[in-house]
Amino acid sequence: MELTILGCNAATPRKNAQTTAQLLEIKGQLVLIDCGEGTQIQLRKLGIKFARIQHIFISHLHGDHFYGLIGLISTFRLLGRSADLHIYGPKGIKEIITLQLKLAKSWTDYKLYFHELEATTSELILDHDKFTVETLPLDHRVYTNGYLFREKIGPRKINKAMIANYGVDVSDMENLKQGKDIFLEDGTLVPNATLTNPPDETKSYAFCSDTAYKPDLAAMVEGVSCLYHEATFLDNHQDLALKTKHSTAKEAALVAADAKVGQLILGHFSSRYPDLNEFIVQANTHFSKVSLAEDGKRFVF
Amino acid sequence: MELTILGCNAATPRKNAQTTAQLLEIKGQLVLIDCGEGTQIQLRKLGIKFARIQHIFISHLHGDHFYGLIGLISTFRLLGRSADLHIYGPKGIKEIITLQLKLAKSWTDYKLYFHELEATTSELILDHDKFTVETLPLDHRVYTNGYLFREKIGPRKINKAMIANYGVDVSDMENLKQGKDIFLEDGTLVPNATLTNPPDETKSYAFCSDTAYKPDLAAMVEGVSCLYHEATFLDNHQDLALKTKHSTAKEAALVAADAKVGQLILGHFSSRYPDLNEFIVQANTHFSKVSLAEDGKRFVF
Repeated sequence: MELTILGCNAATPRKNAQTTAQLLEIKGQLVLIDCGEGTQIQLRKLGIKFARIQHIFISHLHGDHFYGLIGLISTFRLLGRSADLHIYGPKGIKEIITLQLKLAKSWTDYKLYFHELEATTSELILDHDKFTVETLPLDHRVYTNGYLFREKIGPRKINKAMIANYGVDVSDMENLKQGKDIFLEDGTLVPNATLTNPPDETKSYAFCSDTAYKPDLAAMVEGVSCLYHEATFLDNHQDLALKTKHSTAKEAALVAADAKVGQLILGHFSSRYPDLNEFIVQANTHFSKVSLAEDGKRFVF
Repeated sequence: MELTILGCNAATPRKNAQTTAQLLEIKGQLVLIDCGEGTQIQLRKLGIKFARIQHIFISHLHGDHFYGLIGLISTFRLLGRSADLHIYGPKGIKEIITLQLKLAKSWTDYKLYFHELEATTSELILDHDKFTVETLPLDHRVYTNGYLFREKIGPRKINKAMIANYGVDVSDMENLKQGKDIFLEDGTLVPNATLTNPPDETKSYAFCSDTAYKPDLAAMVEGVSCLYHEATFLDNHQDLALKTKHSTAKEAALVAADAKVGQLILGHFSSRYPDLNEFIVQANTHFSKVSLAEDGKRFVF
């Protein structure tokens, strides 16, 4: 998986500080997670072929997470898009978007599917050939979901040397990739494990923004390769975190430690902190493998 | 008046190419005209104290003219605004904005007044102490208004040398500024014109975007100090201009010439033209004092 941070700042976009949006490449598919104002401009700046995006996941209806969506949808239309586009987000998102398209007399020429969410427990919302997406109900001032992306197990990998050794016919390859044993022409059974190696390890990514500290989140994201968890505040603003239902760096790290994740990325920083390094320092008191999100930064896992 | 072009490009925002938004300083007041996506970021980049904006005029409900409005309204809230904000725009704009504020559970703490427009003839929509604003009904694919800003005549200017000469009392200054004659202590009448100079010449600015060529617009903007007129296309795309209800550079210049305006600014350029100089060349066939809008550029008149 490759994750590109398009924006990671809280509240309002500023000069050189975009609000939340992320692009995830998963098994060759591009998905967009949140879409703050200016996301389409950021996609262009980073040279991303964003017409490839087919699924957009919106966490909640605060502006810094979705005010760029209507613009992106309109731009897709102006660029002549024909591929379907699927939008996942809280109930109400369809009304907001369609009202604006109606008043502009600018219906999209492509098909726009809204998948409105209301459940308060985790649900599977996308079962794609190559990956799944589940919601992660969060605890914020409005109805909010994080999203958990899991690659599906791929085919077993052909061991070319052994294939040549046994003189296996090319027609058997698909069965071998699917884990089946095969028979040679002379009737000999060859176990699959002799001719193939296990598939690539599957990766998983959990996006959690915005949320108050939510201890039971750890069980839902247990063992994920990478966890993005918001960390709007540092310890000295714990009172603000409680009041606004956001997390501190330490709280994000507690979730990462409890869930034994591969790595933790912090983001959604309040603009009140000139030096973000302290987020790493405070998170490290509970979890070691911590990175900071940064506009334009890429993470491969 | 000082006009700052925040964005002047058609259709979609791009890297280094903002969509329509303009800031007009008129007698010390800041008004915003249109508000494409990313306008608040552009205001910050240009170092403008945008909390001073009290009136926002939206021409029509196509995204490249108002998708930045909801973000700006939200940012004003987050910055602790308390001053009233007035929004002028087509009917429907209130529903779009309030729906989003409602779903975000983020009502503004300041007062937000919507002045929804439906008239198809010009009307006076703001009678401020220092200026007036009238609509300029345009001809586009959706209901669209341009806006005409006129300074009101200011006070007459005190001639300090003559005031000293006649020994005029300070208590007479207000009457003098308002054009009244005064009596000296010895009963002598002194005509106002002896003690004051005429007020500054009033300026006017007409914003016209988006519109098909509309010959009768000239009568409405006759003699304005500055006319901004959209010029989405060059001559070779006259067919597209007709089809999409936009203007060419020549058509914009025809309006300027018929209206005998002080100067013409062209904008709302289609992204298909790598060299914008040709807009000047073609406009110059009808009108000589032509400038091109450019993101961040300032015009004083």
